[in-house]
Amino acid sequence: MIKVGIIGGTGYTGAELLRLLALHPDVELTVITSRGEVGKPVADLFPNLRHHVDLAFSELHYQDLTACDVVFMATPNGVAMTHARNLLEAGVKLIDLAADFRLKDAALWQQWYGMPHACPELLQEAVYGLPEVNRDAIRKARLIANPGCYPVAVQLGFLPLLQQEVVDPLSLIADAKSGISGAGRGAHIHTLFSEAADNMQAYAVGGHRHLPEIRQGLEAACGKNISLIFVPHFTPMIRGIHATLYARLLKRNIDVQALFEQYYTNEPFVDVLPAGGYPETRSVRGANYCRIAVHRPQGGDTVVVLSVIDNLVKGAAGEAIQNMNILFGLDETAGLNFPGLLP
Amino acid sequence: MIKVGIIGGTGYTGAELLRLLALHPDVELTVITSRGEVGKPVADLFPNLRHHVDLAFSELHYQDLTACDVVFMATPNGVAMTHARNLLEAGVKLIDLAADFRLKDAALWQQWYGMPHACPELLQEAVYGLPEVNRDAIRKARLIANPGCYPVAVQLGFLPLLQQEVVDPLSLIADAKSGISGAGRGAHIHTLFSEAADNMQAYAVGGHRHLPEIRQGLEAACGKNISLIFVPHFTPMIRGIHATLYARLLKRNIDVQALFEQYYTNEPFVDVLPAGGYPETRSVRGANYCRIAVHRPQGGDTVVVLSVIDNLVKGAAGEAIQNMNILFGLDETAGLNFPGLLP
Amino acid sequence: MIKVGIIGGTGYTGAELLRLLALHPDVELTVITSRGEVGKPVADLFPNLRHHVDLAFSELHYQDLTACDVVFMATPNGVAMTHARNLLEAGVKLIDLAADFRLKDAALWQQWYGMPHACPELLQEAVYGLPEVNRDAIRKARLIANPGCYPVAVQLGFLPLLQQEVVDPLSLIADAKSGISGAGRGAHIHTLFSEAADNMQAYAVGGHRHLPEIRQGLEAACGKNISLIFVPHFTPMIRGIHATLYARLLKRNIDVQALFEQYYTNEPFVDVLPAGGYPETRSVRGANYCRIAVHRPQGGDTVVVLSVIDNLVKGAAGEAIQNMNILFGLDETAGLNFPGLLP
Amino acid sequence: MIKVGIIGGTGYTGAELLRLLALHPDVELTVITSRGEVGKPVADLFPNLRHHVDLAFSELHYQDLTACDVVFMATPNGVAMTHARNLLEAGVKLIDLAADFRLKDAALWQQWYGMPHACPELLQEAVYGLPEVNRDAIRKARLIANPGCYPVAVQLGFLPLLQQEVVDPLSLIADAKSGISGAGRGAHIHTLFSEAADNMQAYAVGGHRHLPEIRQGLEAACGKNISLIFVPHFTPMIRGIHATLYARLLKRNIDVQALFEQYYTNEPFVDVLPAGGYPETRSVRGANYCRIAVHRPQGGDTVVVLSVIDNLVKGAAGEAIQNMNILFGLDETAGLNFPGLLP
Repeated sequence: MIKVGIIGGTGYTGAELLRLLALHPDVELTVITSRGEVGKPVADLFPNLRHHVDLAFSELHYQDLTACDVVFMATPNGVAMTHARNLLEAGVKLIDLAADFRLKDAALWQQWYGMPHACPELLQEAVYGLPEVNRDAIRKARLIANPGCYPVAVQLGFLPLLQQEVVDPLSLIADAKSGISGAGRGAHIHTLFSEAADNMQAYAVGGHRHLPEIRQGLEAACGKNISLIFVPHFTPMIRGIHATLYARLLKRNIDVQALFEQYYTNEPFVDVLPAGGYPETRSVRGANYCRIAVHRPQGGDTVVVLSVIDNLVKGAAGEAIQNMNILFGLDETAGLNFPGLLP
Repeated sequence: MIKVGIIGGTGYTGAELLRLLALHPDVELTVITSRGEVGKPVADLFPNLRHHVDLAFSELHYQDLTACDVVFMATPNGVAMTHARNLLEAGVKLIDLAADFRLKDAALWQQWYGMPHACPELLQEAVYGLPEVNRDAIRKARLIANPGCYPVAVQLGFLPLLQQEVVDPLSLIADAKSGISGAGRGAHIHTLFSEAADNMQAYAVGGHRHLPEIRQGLEAACGKNISLIFVPHFTPMIRGIHATLYARLLKRNIDVQALFEQYYTNEPFVDVLPAGGYPETRSVRGANYCRIAVHRPQGGDTVVVLSVIDNLVKGAAGEAIQNMNILFGLDETAGLNFPGLLP
Repeated sequence: MIKVGIIGGTGYTGAELLRLLALHPDVELTVITSRGEVGKPVADLFPNLRHHVDLAFSELHYQDLTACDVVFMATPNGVAMTHARNLLEAGVKLIDLAADFRLKDAALWQQWYGMPHACPELLQEAVYGLPEVNRDAIRKARLIANPGCYPVAVQLGFLPLLQQEVVDPLSLIADAKSGISGAGRGAHIHTLFSEAADNMQAYAVGGHRHLPEIRQGLEAACGKNISLIFVPHFTPMIRGIHATLYARLLKRNIDVQALFEQYYTNEPFVDVLPAGGYPETRSVRGANYCRIAVHRPQGGDTVVVLSVIDNLVKGAAGEAIQNMNILFGLDETAGLNFPGLLP
Repeated sequence: MIKVGIIGGTGYTGAELLRLLALHPDVELTVITSRGEVGKPVADLFPNLRHHVDLAFSELHYQDLTACDVVFMATPNGVAMTHARNLLEAGVKLIDLAADFRLKDAALWQQWYGMPHACPELLQEAVYGLPEVNRDAIRKARLIANPGCYPVAVQLGFLPLLQQEVVDPLSLIADAKSGISGAGRGAHIHTLFSEAADNMQAYAVGGHRHLPEIRQGLEAACGKNISLIFVPHFTPMIRGIHATLYARLLKRNIDVQALFEQYYTNEPFVDVLPAGGYPETRSVRGANYCRIAVHRPQGGDTVVVLSVIDNLVKGAAGEAIQNMNILFGLDETAGLNFPGLLP
């Protein structure tokens, strides 16, 4: 059994991590810390976990965490980087579900996250935990930067087109729709039920923090500069991201359907729909799949990719467990091999 | 491996049965029939099941079904009773998720379901599949009548009070709120999104088909006549039943909290919350639990029981699998031992 | 034109008051105060009001308010009572949408609201603003206590039965379901979209602040002690209250349908549905109606009343304007005579 | 008073037309026909209209309709064209809310709507009822083709850019999100609550019927061929369209904010938000506004326009009444001058 610790498990990412770890056959959850909820049983906060998670939240003590094989950090941005060095030195593997280690460039990180990076020397070592791109590096990593939710859906949709050089990398548009849980479990007015229900709106058109992350990933994949317009939207659903991606084809006689099917043929968690399909976010509700369809409206030179994930699973906690599975040499699908909840 | 067949799997109960069977370690799904969708892969109808269920819907042939150890009947009311005799004679165990075998009295059945019963002689043999009441009989059954969704939530909430004779059996009120999936996957105007969303309404106050079923179950449990007012409501959520139950206490010095905790102490799927709790339907979303809290407002002589289930799981498909587990001597929680999806 | 001021218009009650006042033909809104949003245009907070409300929030200055004919107080509980005396002495009429003047008994108020009352001498003078009960008193009032949302739906449903003495006043149960806007526009976790959507739960079974208010109103109406069990529930919709009311009939040969129709025959905003009807909350969405149906399941001795309102309109801002109309001798339906938004 | 008739008022467009006409000061609704609901009071189908609309649905008789000044046709596509000639000849003005007269080219119409056009000679005469483009022609029209819902949101967003020739007309992308009421009140599985709630999906990427309509409108406006990718999405809300529009700027030193503000400065129902704004669909819920914001991410050469409407109001019934107001020389805002319902 892999001994697992969690730092900061009171948000939705933490809740989902707990649910998935409770299902995992090879894992023993030994500690979960929270500054705000010390002593409270986890199941008091998340009643779905009654009789599945018996731990209580505890204060953060390094001796508890260094007794673990792996520690998931599900803390707000800027916290994981204050603990990473100490825990790594003690030999613990780290998987950060926040943004602290996602960008390679410390100056860029500071620009988007508004604070200096506490351990820039770890940014190069950190492996970006997108298994479909970095599986081999993940296997040998000490520190994994789990991707953001939008970046998973957008990168998996664009990657085949960019790596196969069939689209103009300067023509990319990502129109992304996210369920409200993507905004977290913090008490804010704009995510109240009465504000967010029966409503649709865009936000952060001027620049979302996931933009540099996506750009870095796609540029690394295709070895070229890309230009990406990224417009996220709040959608009145709890979970799910639907990324609608647009790019201009460089060649007309390309079978984009075959390209996607071949590209992802061996991926356990990327499911390319048959031609003409429309992935629904609910088809991945609670599950670790990215479901993709490719269209080419009116046979023209614009390709439209529809990519859906559950932001809390393939976009966060499920991806983290997939990374853990790879890291510890388990079956990559261990604890994740179940369908979405529909209806 | 238990060989399983399903008759009629295109509704929500069927979809959920498929999802749960796909998770079950001891089951091999061998056939699923549908009049309307012959030849269509199951995963085309329910895309969450892609890569989890590879079967296609087939025509109903008895030789396919009699090769199974157990057949689930997830058909509209009135269909299962036309197949039951033939399948039982072939030695197959049957679990009917419709209403055909829930009432013991054929005349009463005809009165509420508007057609004569096709095999009244089986009504006495059929075991009402509420494990918390009939576990021993289920173990030896050939034919199990899986309870209705409201009846599960309502009976589990009233049973401890009635069996311990602490409430007046003539004072029962069940105000029940159901998610819209309870109305099925048929194309009807009143369950359209634009009709049912952001709306609340009662229905069937004059008499819902689940009323005689609940009455029969509660009267059998307490050996007395009961009087029950049952008011169901459509609630704008996909899954979930919240039954709010009222009864008049006969004795004032009774600890209802202790009574419920003791009554359900060994039940794997009934979870009594600590005193003062409020069960949320989302805490059982997708899971097989019935979560219950007991209140006594202002310390008066009315007891209020709050009982929640997922109508498609503990109220239908999960209950059916729990019954199958009992029937085949498996661990009763096999394939069902997972938490709800929250948020 | 009636000059209107509002104290504290940043909550949902205030937003709705602004929307309705913008539609009112006889009203000029001259000032709206807010401690937290001084200087911000109202339409920046509530973008639906762009081009309809041009005011900005201002600091509370008595000279601005005493220049008004009427001031609506849409503040948190405990604020209105600190301003009432001063404003009344200046000759301004007051309509309080909070709870400060709803209870006649200062000790009871303190017990439920957790603070001493600042002007108990006004409690007797304040007129409880339920037009269907107190129309004459409202006409002559200086200070109107606008009812709570649940109390409107529950009292209008029980009143005909109690005043006509056809039900046992000790047998009352009110099972009430409220949209989430009823919990206000404060930033709290339990009313986040991801917490409240696709979920149902009861709360405050032990005692909700609206319980003594309802009790006071019903006891005044029937001149007897009543016993009421009141169980409120959060329902995943933005607006709407559905109160399902239960009472035991004292006489069997009573035509409850006719009783309700006659009782409300002249009421412009109480709409009794034909026998067998089911009022939907969406039918009153955004409108000032209370829509009621009466049932008597199986012809027994329990009467079931279904009563729906929009908690922000007939349950708050619309009721307040109806009270203002009465107070100033306007047509009682002025500015309120429009249908609900359906779908 | 303008005498108004409606053909086919049992869908959502008809329901909304009824609600808005009930609010209109200058209108008398005299007849509403329906094949399926003859004799049924309108308010039985749409209970929000109780005490506001006293008519019952009647059979279609020309003498009833020709006694009207104007007839709204809210029928399925292909019905209005069978009545138009007769009614026009009798001197009635016609406003068709379906698609029968939206396209100028009968062959194109047949291609997209799958049937030959019944009166192609009227296609040239019909005036496309987008007041912001065709106000003068509408004033003199006999037959008005009310625009589709997506076309209103998309055209109003692109028009300023195309008419001022600041974007490449071959670079247009419209990613549009629609509430489920846009799919109508027909009983279909894919628009059931349990299918559409908590879910997001694209559809009709290969070609939606609103594509040729948008193309025709935009090409007429700019006098050039355009290339448009149009991807509609089902969004789990009842009402609302959020169109997110992308185009490539031809000039870099252009103030798109000023351009939009000037373009729409005199339009009563197009509201351009201040720079940096994000229009919310709920801000126009039930109201006749199109609310628009313009962005230019990272100051680059892509302009992003966010355009929201209520699909049933500015996208259907409200637009139709705005057209009627123009046609009859009324104040263009008569009966439409109210804010959206928020929250």
